[in-house]
Amino acid sequence: MQITSLEDLIKMLAKLPGLGPRSARRIVLHLIKNPATKIIPLASKMYEVAEAIKDCQICGNVDLISPCSICSNHKRDQSIICVLETIADLWAIERSNSFNGKYHVLGGALSAIDGITPETLNIKPLYDRVEKGDIKEIIIATNPTLEGQSTSFYLIEFLEELTSSFDIKISRLPCGLPVGAELDYIDDGTMNIAFKRRENVD
Amino acid sequence: MQITSLEDLIKMLAKLPGLGPRSARRIVLHLIKNPATKIIPLASKMYEVAEAIKDCQICGNVDLISPCSICSNHKRDQSIICVLETIADLWAIERSNSFNGKYHVLGGALSAIDGITPETLNIKPLYDRVEKGDIKEIIIATNPTLEGQSTSFYLIEFLEELTSSFDIKISRLPCGLPVGAELDYIDDGTMNIAFKRRENVD
Repeated sequence: MQITSLEDLIKMLAKLPGLGPRSARRIVLHLIKNPATKIIPLASKMYEVAEAIKDCQICGNVDLISPCSICSNHKRDQSIICVLETIADLWAIERSNSFNGKYHVLGGALSAIDGITPETLNIKPLYDRVEKGDIKEIIIATNPTLEGQSTSFYLIEFLEELTSSFDIKISRLPCGLPVGAELDYIDDGTMNIAFKRRENVD
Repeated sequence: MQITSLEDLIKMLAKLPGLGPRSARRIVLHLIKNPATKIIPLASKMYEVAEAIKDCQICGNVDLISPCSICSNHKRDQSIICVLETIADLWAIERSNSFNGKYHVLGGALSAIDGITPETLNIKPLYDRVEKGDIKEIIIATNPTLEGQSTSFYLIEFLEELTSSFDIKISRLPCGLPVGAELDYIDDGTMNIAFKRRENVD
């Protein structure tokens, strides 16, 4: 194999999340088996997406329109905002059909080690949305990790101050056992929280 | 998210070997963070490869030239042909710097279940290469799997007949313990073969 575009392509693919040199080579070998039906359509779809992709100016989601299709969908509840870390989280919630309100994507979680401060996150626009009014509830849905919890505490503190003059409920997603899980495989932290927050059976 | 080119791209990526819907979504989220520096160069590199890629008419390798850079490299030993199943195997041998002869890629291994017969493999051109002469050794380097071994037996039988009038050596790669392996992790089949084929210490 010459050190050429073929190796360049493998190197580029190997840098994608979840891939390495070996999986990138496998993918390239698969793609070049039939360039016309495999590699060309994929490349042109990438161009299509690259040209069409837009950041939503309201919530921080990505879509082919801005405001995104969720923000511009008037059938969704305008009065509830679900605050999350990443677009991946947004997609996960959408897939689960658990929520019919609007979103606000922070773009990450607070982390002193990685130098992520409140200023680098998409927090200020959230305050603006809240101050504009018509919001009845804010659901903090950051991840149940150290960073996610710090972000959650930070947001709750500021939002409580900010919303003291409005009638806005602030809520968050509970920790507990995942549905369908086996106790044998539950990590200690979750087990701990599940016992601490056990519910009365009425 | 709209059911649009973004979801199309995820679906296309999810079909690649080693990827699924979740890893494809992760990759797309990574790519669309900065389309200009991530998705566009990748797509254009794919076009470049798709346009340039050629099957080598001699050995079945892929390259940007045909005959491929290995077949047209006169510094490599023309008299030894290493026969293998796939281009991935060829790349693996090249990476290891273990071999300086020429290759012949069969394009798979015999498999009654998958309907892969000698006719569907790149075997006939191998015979043609052998009959043209100047070959001193043929190394059968099919995988040490059931299919690879069947292919190896098939090839050895036919090649022995074919080469009876020439002075051609036929060899194959030995099975044994991988270098650096721990016996605790060696599978039973390999362990079995390693004991059966144990070597005398002179």
